[in-house]
Amino acid sequence: MDDVGTVYLVGAGPGDPDLLTLRAARLLQGAEIVIHDGLVDPAVLALAPESAELVSVAKRRARHTLPQDAICDLLVREARKGRDVVRLKGGDPFIFGRGGEEAEACRIAGVPVEIVPGISAANGAAAAAQIALTHRDAASVVSFVAGQCKGLSEQNWAGLAGKGRTLVIYMGVKTAPQIAEKLMADGLAPDMPLAVIENACRPEMRVLRGPLAALPGLVARERVKSPALIVIGEVAARGDAFVAALAAEAAQ
Amino acid sequence: MDDVGTVYLVGAGPGDPDLLTLRAARLLQGAEIVIHDGLVDPAVLALAPESAELVSVAKRRARHTLPQDAICDLLVREARKGRDVVRLKGGDPFIFGRGGEEAEACRIAGVPVEIVPGISAANGAAAAAQIALTHRDAASVVSFVAGQCKGLSEQNWAGLAGKGRTLVIYMGVKTAPQIAEKLMADGLAPDMPLAVIENACRPEMRVLRGPLAALPGLVARERVKSPALIVIGEVAARGDAFVAALAAEAAQ
Repeated sequence: MDDVGTVYLVGAGPGDPDLLTLRAARLLQGAEIVIHDGLVDPAVLALAPESAELVSVAKRRARHTLPQDAICDLLVREARKGRDVVRLKGGDPFIFGRGGEEAEACRIAGVPVEIVPGISAANGAAAAAQIALTHRDAASVVSFVAGQCKGLSEQNWAGLAGKGRTLVIYMGVKTAPQIAEKLMADGLAPDMPLAVIENACRPEMRVLRGPLAALPGLVARERVKSPALIVIGEVAARGDAFVAALAAEAAQ
Repeated sequence: MDDVGTVYLVGAGPGDPDLLTLRAARLLQGAEIVIHDGLVDPAVLALAPESAELVSVAKRRARHTLPQDAICDLLVREARKGRDVVRLKGGDPFIFGRGGEEAEACRIAGVPVEIVPGISAANGAAAAAQIALTHRDAASVVSFVAGQCKGLSEQNWAGLAGKGRTLVIYMGVKTAPQIAEKLMADGLAPDMPLAVIENACRPEMRVLRGPLAALPGLVARERVKSPALIVIGEVAARGDAFVAALAAEAAQ
């Protein structure tokens, strides 16, 4: 078994290749085989050498081209051929990336696995939109959840949003009406500020703001598309209006 | 005001220079002045050119060498001299980094500011310790809080940890006894699994595991030192024992 390769579960970050880590870029540049999700930007894949085999396991229309078990099997099979495998995932492999399952599959099979963290979408979007996820005056807790249809109604989000707390919802565009309803049913105020960040870390980024109750209308009217994140909490209101007011005050 | 520089609030990641982003590395390599925290690893600072001025605003013994207002003033003053300023912070600037205050200070002063996200300590430690922060079978919510002494008793962490949820506590080593007490008072089971990750992403990393009730004893007996993170939730128990059991089962 000396000739078993290593599986590198690598976070590709939020899209902009400049937000790859040095380690991720180096692994990509030396890759023999790259097994990647649909969320990974083509500009990131372009770092792999021409000789590298690129295998997409992209989700399409809400179904996996390859189901998760088949992805795990593929990683193990390729590593057992003696090849080092770069498994490239959007964002961070351990935040809604199912990296845990893939790492376990490798360890169970006796295949060495290394995790290379990436900038998760929340961190990338917050930086690009200049919304601090924690803030001494506004939030001492930040939580991440995923809002895709499957299992949304069974998920318990009670208490994650509110005073002093920031909630970031991944993949919540399609379910925006159910999300607003769910959070208000949990007791969150309809006027809690939120921001929707579409295409974060890309030139076409948009940041839309409004109160929680207006979320479904905002997403529909502005035709927000994935990828987009929803940030809910007081930090979402510390935007340009706030800064403009402080600047005016300071100028007096 | 044409000759006002830009302030770059740059995340230095969890310590290992390989976990800097490409953008952070490039900004550092071209820096005129780097204003950095004590949390930033010397190997990261070594990327700056010899000509760069390095200014430390490190916390020492729980007090700031420079208070936060003075740091904000320094950023604005240097930018107004026409210099681009690299403000380098451990981890991600917008996760317990007080980057929000610094960005606001720049915007109020009319100084252009750009945020470069970094790998936050939680993401770096989770990758290094191979603990998935979210997991289809174990956690659909992940939350980050900070456990330093100041304000710990006033902070409301109710509901952040428990079934299906992962809680990551930054800077909680010194207050480990109060943290365990606080979480159990909030109703968390004494046998909830946790992991303490010390010196994540560094060669001397240690990962210690145990139940919540044993946290104070674990930290004391093993003499855990900062930097360390505490990960609380079922994901912390999906470690080697779990994988060994599954592997044995698969081998039958």
